[in-house]
Amino acid sequence: MQPYELSLAAAADAIRARRLSPVELVDSVLDRIEKVEPHLGAYVTVAAEQARRAASEAEHEAAQGRYRGPLHGIPMGLKDLIDVSGMATTASSRVRAGHRATADSTVAARLSAAGAILLGKTHTHEFAFGLTTPQTRNAWDHGRVAGGSSGGSAVAVASGAATFALGTDTGGSIRVPAALNGVVGLKPTYGLVPRHGVTSLSWSLDHVGPLTRTVEDAALVLTALAGHDPRDPASLSVPAADYRPVAGTDLTGLRIGLPRTYYFDTVHPQVETAVRHAIGQLEALGAQLVEVDIPMTRYIQATQWGLMVPEAGAYHEGSLRTVPELYQEDVRILLEASELMSAGDYVRAQRSRTLMRAEWARMLEEVDVIAAPSVPMPAVGADEETVTWPDGTVEGVSDAYVRLSAPANITGVPALTVPVGHDSAGLPIGMQLLGRPLGEPTLLRVGHAYEQTQPARALATAA
Amino acid sequence: MQPYELSLAAAADAIRARRLSPVELVDSVLDRIEKVEPHLGAYVTVAAEQARRAASEAEHEAAQGRYRGPLHGIPMGLKDLIDVSGMATTASSRVRAGHRATADSTVAARLSAAGAILLGKTHTHEFAFGLTTPQTRNAWDHGRVAGGSSGGSAVAVASGAATFALGTDTGGSIRVPAALNGVVGLKPTYGLVPRHGVTSLSWSLDHVGPLTRTVEDAALVLTALAGHDPRDPASLSVPAADYRPVAGTDLTGLRIGLPRTYYFDTVHPQVETAVRHAIGQLEALGAQLVEVDIPMTRYIQATQWGLMVPEAGAYHEGSLRTVPELYQEDVRILLEASELMSAGDYVRAQRSRTLMRAEWARMLEEVDVIAAPSVPMPAVGADEETVTWPDGTVEGVSDAYVRLSAPANITGVPALTVPVGHDSAGLPIGMQLLGRPLGEPTLLRVGHAYEQTQPARALATAA
Repeated sequence: MQPYELSLAAAADAIRARRLSPVELVDSVLDRIEKVEPHLGAYVTVAAEQARRAASEAEHEAAQGRYRGPLHGIPMGLKDLIDVSGMATTASSRVRAGHRATADSTVAARLSAAGAILLGKTHTHEFAFGLTTPQTRNAWDHGRVAGGSSGGSAVAVASGAATFALGTDTGGSIRVPAALNGVVGLKPTYGLVPRHGVTSLSWSLDHVGPLTRTVEDAALVLTALAGHDPRDPASLSVPAADYRPVAGTDLTGLRIGLPRTYYFDTVHPQVETAVRHAIGQLEALGAQLVEVDIPMTRYIQATQWGLMVPEAGAYHEGSLRTVPELYQEDVRILLEASELMSAGDYVRAQRSRTLMRAEWARMLEEVDVIAAPSVPMPAVGADEETVTWPDGTVEGVSDAYVRLSAPANITGVPALTVPVGHDSAGLPIGMQLLGRPLGEPTLLRVGHAYEQTQPARALATAA
Repeated sequence: MQPYELSLAAAADAIRARRLSPVELVDSVLDRIEKVEPHLGAYVTVAAEQARRAASEAEHEAAQGRYRGPLHGIPMGLKDLIDVSGMATTASSRVRAGHRATADSTVAARLSAAGAILLGKTHTHEFAFGLTTPQTRNAWDHGRVAGGSSGGSAVAVASGAATFALGTDTGGSIRVPAALNGVVGLKPTYGLVPRHGVTSLSWSLDHVGPLTRTVEDAALVLTALAGHDPRDPASLSVPAADYRPVAGTDLTGLRIGLPRTYYFDTVHPQVETAVRHAIGQLEALGAQLVEVDIPMTRYIQATQWGLMVPEAGAYHEGSLRTVPELYQEDVRILLEASELMSAGDYVRAQRSRTLMRAEWARMLEEVDVIAAPSVPMPAVGADEETVTWPDGTVEGVSDAYVRLSAPANITGVPALTVPVGHDSAGLPIGMQLLGRPLGEPTLLRVGHAYEQTQPARALATAA
């Protein structure tokens, strides 16, 4: 096994035990990037020299016995909405030409302090406002979408071009590409990970979180990311915590909500089969399945778009007026649409969110987590704009990919996607676990238990 | 002294000591209502028989030694936005014809449990959407506005037609009429007093609070009102507390912020003189004056209206479509204006509020309270629509009355208005004390200390 193939936890153990040096690991991943990046387009920028220098410093530190913890010397990609001092934050957009961040975002600073090494900035759907990331190819099939908006981060992790990465998630932008590329993605509780220095799409729905190869890895990254920062007005005052999941796979006493409505409606049959099989595994580990009815489902889409579009429009107001031609057409149309929305539309979306949060809180008193598909179908072809369901209904690809993710953005509950197999075309399928606000420990415990029952996953085959 | 002239605290002491019975007190206040109400128009409904029955029950309870506390047997008025089971909540509007509340609001239930006796429902500017309350006359000059929207409550308390009353405050609607009628008004911290069962004007700015004749009385009522209720989504999880201010007038060590900007700009000279004189009294009690600069003042008006108008429009959406002719013209125009506001306007107002809250929090680290005028000018004539300032600028009466109140609605900080004298025409002037979120004990302490240095106030002379 090459160093670039190691999970974060395995690499950390090897570095700590001095069986692997940060320099070897970073060199291995940089070589891998050189090999796969031309086919994948995961990165906006690769900062190879900077990464090598940081690796050699990390090695030096480790040699002197200064070990910063499990992220010491681990190479990562950051979605290019995340400010790193001295580098451009391009948002994969021509609008940001000539940009240069003058300070680290909170998450970049925390990861750097924890010893992680930046490989480069990964592609996002322009300004995170889309579900495909057209610059990037799916790690399992180059003719298919990467998913988005954190497509570059998901593909980099899936292909061995980063040991872990960060993404952002406003309507599924961590979970969708994670699911479509067969990696783990965690959208934490709203407010748990500070967003200071991260380009906003829709501040009342935006989250930052990790994309990793295992649930344990996601927990290790979350431990470095979580904690209050007053510079994000939504940041929660939550004490620092160690999120590494406990060992063991016994889920006795845990109540898992199985949605009777919504999450299994209009879902690809192979997705449903794989997710129900995985839920069966959780039951086999001792969990009790409890059927739940998802509340207010017919308000989900209107609430998500009713919040997101006006907030995005307000953020881009200035540049939409001065340089509209620099946006990609799909994003420009969405931003222009925001000007047509009334204050009443936005107010109604906010009222609906308040009610939805209360209803979800009630539902989550009955169960510890909810298990469901992450996305309704695996990665579609890069040029497909709609999906036709067996009953003949036609749905936009973006609408379909947002559909099962949006409830966790609207309600702010944490949501984790875990790979649960592949369809007959070899495309990954993800199971989504949703928990109570600040219920990350339970989500990670369940996801980790599931993973321990499965054979280790290989890197993406097409990479 | 007649019982209707007593402060709440004095009446409570007399009832507790059995020197006064609830029946005597309620009869005295009902007689007073009969005498003054024809000239004042403070009440929508007086429930005299119901009040007499309740008084006799309260007397019976007291005679049996069951004393509920300082509100036992105290007669009150409730602004007619506050649901009382079995009564109409008219909102002083034809739109509510035939209304009948089927349950008590949280505040009505809490006051009833504390032993208070409902005299009747007091007039509001229609649906609280205005600053004058045209049905009601100022208690000191019948040709002048009562102020609003809690005009009925303020005039009832000022004239001896209620021992205390409740109002609501979205842009000054407790503080403005309290100041214009020479009584005390407290707008508590946002979320401290539950709004369940109270008709909403703008839920992100709405507050419920007491109007009383003394600061101590306001504290006694707040003690009964405050505390969590999950049926108000904004309700804070704050434990019950006794807000009765400590005795004594020593303010040594207290830092009082004296605004260098905004609160004394464009203020009637006699208002400025009276408020600065009162602030001098606080200094004489040992407080240290610290000059402060009010942040983001040029955003206050746009933020207040940008939040209030769309939220009010959303609340009235249905009846504005079906029965627009039942609204008064001024309110209908405001509600119709909400349909012209864009989502961007509302989003920008929300962003501005977030920034303003943060800036105010920073300012309130430097001082314990801020002292300022409550309103820029005393009560205007009932038919005046604008005020002309000495520099020649012309301002709408409502804009002027909202101007100094709105910051506490936008930021949610508590604000107390205390009478500090009269102008040369005999019209009352109010000083506003603003504190930190949940800083009610400090506000009440300062207001109470000030009052103890002043001669006892008489009831309104015109009543």
